[in-house]
Amino acid sequence: MSLNIQPTSTSAPTSRPFLTWQLIIDWAEEHYRSRAFSKDERIPARPGLLYLVQKGSIRLVGNAHISASHNKSSKSKISNISDEAFLGFVGAGQPFELIAQSPFTLQAYAHADQTTVLWMYWHDLDNWPYFRREVLDAFRYQHQRKLLWLSTLGQRRTIDRLFGFLTLLIEEYGEPWIAQDKPEAISGYYLPWPLTHAQIGSAIGSTRVTVTRLMGKLRQQGLIFIQNDHLICLPTQSEQSQ
Amino acid sequence: MSLNIQPTSTSAPTSRPFLTWQLIIDWAEEHYRSRAFSKDERIPARPGLLYLVQKGSIRLVGNAHISASHNKSSKSKISNISDEAFLGFVGAGQPFELIAQSPFTLQAYAHADQTTVLWMYWHDLDNWPYFRREVLDAFRYQHQRKLLWLSTLGQRRTIDRLFGFLTLLIEEYGEPWIAQDKPEAISGYYLPWPLTHAQIGSAIGSTRVTVTRLMGKLRQQGLIFIQNDHLICLPTQSEQSQ
Repeated sequence: MSLNIQPTSTSAPTSRPFLTWQLIIDWAEEHYRSRAFSKDERIPARPGLLYLVQKGSIRLVGNAHISASHNKSSKSKISNISDEAFLGFVGAGQPFELIAQSPFTLQAYAHADQTTVLWMYWHDLDNWPYFRREVLDAFRYQHQRKLLWLSTLGQRRTIDRLFGFLTLLIEEYGEPWIAQDKPEAISGYYLPWPLTHAQIGSAIGSTRVTVTRLMGKLRQQGLIFIQNDHLICLPTQSEQSQ
Repeated sequence: MSLNIQPTSTSAPTSRPFLTWQLIIDWAEEHYRSRAFSKDERIPARPGLLYLVQKGSIRLVGNAHISASHNKSSKSKISNISDEAFLGFVGAGQPFELIAQSPFTLQAYAHADQTTVLWMYWHDLDNWPYFRREVLDAFRYQHQRKLLWLSTLGQRRTIDRLFGFLTLLIEEYGEPWIAQDKPEAISGYYLPWPLTHAQIGSAIGSTRVTVTRLMGKLRQQGLIFIQNDHLICLPTQSEQSQ
């Protein structure tokens, strides 16, 4: 195994020049284009608008409107929450948009309490050409991450998809975890937001029950561990080889 | 079922202004930045460069370098072609790039014979600011399509993932199919490139054998049909309700 977790702040375009970012936050507040959402509240995002996460994090989900196995009962199933697939996070400083809609619906929810979102029309960015380029580069980066995500979802064994999925999320969003009994080194990287086993299952084409069973297996193998607050951690390489 | 296949050329940003596109093709040929590839030949794409498909189509694939189920034997398995996940096509006029690499490797192959690819550095686009914006918009579009793709891969039943996957591909790349015995109307839309059942399986986390079985089931249900040259078709709505 050559898992090599890097602090991702270097590759992810999260570190905006403070001045522009502050300018945009001020502009959004002045123009009433800023709003705070509570946990699990839906962001009423419309096509054609650009959204920026100022604080907290966004959870993207997709709903299927087609199904080969339930053609007849599909109408009653659409409202079922288990049909919702978890598609990833958008963290602070990052842009998102929801355009494509058919035959699946994309939606955004506040994943953390007090998640603040700004929005603007694309032409509003004409005032900040450098910032526009940063936003488009952020989408390029997100697109590449989704290709990696698709790579793991192509794996045949559910446990491989699960481990690949967790590795990708923690590689992108992970924060260093320093154990109390080993304060001199980083013991691993943890995902700073909780994810339920049902949400994980909805991302990797599996069920809550299977995810719970396979998470236990990954813990037994020492490939993951769980932090105090139920947050998922990947141990650093030295730990894994023990 | 409200499947509503639209001719996608309106939504996909494929129709470049002919003049700029011709200018760029000329520029690439002058600077030896253009090359034709034969079917299944790998495009030696490097991070930091931008690639444009001039003719034919590109197949993106991902290779896993981690696995929870085969830690010990993973080295010998990496070269196995069955570990390669199909991640989608890039058609003529469309850009692609391969940046993200860990813990999966992204690669591009010519999917059709005589596929011609141009390449350039991002700063080369400083000469064509409008074209740069088109390229970045194309990546925004591709990113949205991948979110839809992730939505279907989150579905629990393999047949739903298979049908969602085929629907998305044909919605994006499909060409109208006019049956000989019904020349007055469009009978469906077909994917203009062949895909093996193994390739489909590698995209949806399944096997060649299962895909073959489920494709038969979808055909029986009238949800798909197969054209003369083994190309996959989705019937138009009127056909499906029969």
